[in-house]
Amino acid sequence: MTDSPRYLTGDGDGIRDFIDKFDVFLFDCDGVLWSGDYLFPGTNETLELLRSRGKQVVFVTNNSTKSRADYKKKLESLGIPSSTEEIFSSSYSASIYISRILKLPENKRKVFVLGETGIEQELRSENVPFIGGTDPAYRRDITPEDYKLIAAGDESVIDPEVGVVLVGLDFHVNYLKLALAMHYVRRGAVFLATNIDSTLPNSGSLFPGAGSISAPLIMALGREPVSLGKPNQAMMDAIEGKFEFDRSRACMVGDRANTDIRFGLEGKLGGTLGVLTGVSSKEDFVSGSVRPAAYLDKLSDLLGSS
Amino acid sequence: MTDSPRYLTGDGDGIRDFIDKFDVFLFDCDGVLWSGDYLFPGTNETLELLRSRGKQVVFVTNNSTKSRADYKKKLESLGIPSSTEEIFSSSYSASIYISRILKLPENKRKVFVLGETGIEQELRSENVPFIGGTDPAYRRDITPEDYKLIAAGDESVIDPEVGVVLVGLDFHVNYLKLALAMHYVRRGAVFLATNIDSTLPNSGSLFPGAGSISAPLIMALGREPVSLGKPNQAMMDAIEGKFEFDRSRACMVGDRANTDIRFGLEGKLGGTLGVLTGVSSKEDFVSGSVRPAAYLDKLSDLLGSS
Repeated sequence: MTDSPRYLTGDGDGIRDFIDKFDVFLFDCDGVLWSGDYLFPGTNETLELLRSRGKQVVFVTNNSTKSRADYKKKLESLGIPSSTEEIFSSSYSASIYISRILKLPENKRKVFVLGETGIEQELRSENVPFIGGTDPAYRRDITPEDYKLIAAGDESVIDPEVGVVLVGLDFHVNYLKLALAMHYVRRGAVFLATNIDSTLPNSGSLFPGAGSISAPLIMALGREPVSLGKPNQAMMDAIEGKFEFDRSRACMVGDRANTDIRFGLEGKLGGTLGVLTGVSSKEDFVSGSVRPAAYLDKLSDLLGSS
Repeated sequence: MTDSPRYLTGDGDGIRDFIDKFDVFLFDCDGVLWSGDYLFPGTNETLELLRSRGKQVVFVTNNSTKSRADYKKKLESLGIPSSTEEIFSSSYSASIYISRILKLPENKRKVFVLGETGIEQELRSENVPFIGGTDPAYRRDITPEDYKLIAAGDESVIDPEVGVVLVGLDFHVNYLKLALAMHYVRRGAVFLATNIDSTLPNSGSLFPGAGSISAPLIMALGREPVSLGKPNQAMMDAIEGKFEFDRSRACMVGDRANTDIRFGLEGKLGGTLGVLTGVSSKEDFVSGSVRPAAYLDKLSDLLGSS
């Protein structure tokens, strides 16, 4: 994708032609529809416009701390009408991958979770057994005895049925959990991440993202996880499996070139649309190595189509 | 260094010649003298042999969780006679670097520490003010309010005098500390690490090392810290500054090719000696990209010199 993206803000005809090309719009959320708890003006009107023209709307988020049900509540709290079916989160994508794609041996079906409740809810919805996660038993310091038991693979600390380590954003990450995750992978567990976003936008600034929770393990193990969030195509496959859309008639809308736009390009969608209300800059979209087909100052500029 | 290393175990003449070439022996400790709490047989006899021949012995450790005084206690507990003066730790090296090399503005002299008491003790010994570290006030979950205050740089959570972030192995790492460290660096603080060892040997296995505590910040910031431990030459300069030895008459002894041996080679020491009682394998020493001048099955094979 080396063409310069088309700048659509204020280009009424261009916007109308662009919208007409697609049946499905996949939306990244934070940085596109809202920022943190601030709904961008015109977000709802824009979604209404698309729905009124018969477009399928899908909310695609790498946020693994929330389940689809949580995310629907988040959308509702901001006044955005949605259904759970329209939502795809990286925790859901990871759960689908574990339950339907990974062929785990009968006695290795358990998941050790580094993450929050969103992952747990989605694993439960797919009937995947798990340990770790928000279990308070893991929210403690490592002890000298732990080192010996972990090193020895003692079943009081190491569950022999764990066949997967799944890492998402964990606001309760600690050394004990990292040590356990490291040992499960060393013992043969599949190393997965819901997503590897390096940062998390909040309050107009950036904080450590889910990738920062995988990073210690990547460093200690010398191995990368399989990431199930954007831009990984496992997530696109899951979305397509659900909505059975024509990729050439779908458009990915996002604020991050290296995740959202890349996700759409590698998924061979008919279109990609960048917005300048999040992480990537105009410079990124126009001159970066990953460029959308078109970009807008803000999503609600789509309202200027008629 | 592309020559094959000389295998000295059982080679009495070779060992004698090798020892005679040096006045100073720098020892990595864990994996060379002991493993965890297990003193290798012959360690003391070997150190006695070297001392009896007038060799200066220096213990060089990347372990930042202990101060030099703590480390002396560790050596004593294993029955190894030593003086604090013979010990160089990465926390000491980092403190020297901050107090004597970095030229910090008057109002930016404070260090935000991600690490344990060893770092704190060494910073105190150099009169460097610090916050964070083992302060229990930082051992808590991040709150929604924290995000806002941190993003805004509010002085209730962000100390404007912090000019350095120093990251070592922190067994109490948490999301709040990572978020604060990230923001201090984004606000201009110098990003330092005591060391970036990916793993920590314990109980015959490997656990996340100090590098695993820097890793989330490297990922979130897209920047590497300056590391003051082996193989960084700031540590060699500090050792040389203290002992004023002739580098051509010094030998680095270690079990890790990519830290210990590299440290000696890049420091242009007269010799490097690998031992096979730790992380690196014979294959690493003989065919790896970083090769010692000589290697032994175990350190005490030096006793077979006469």
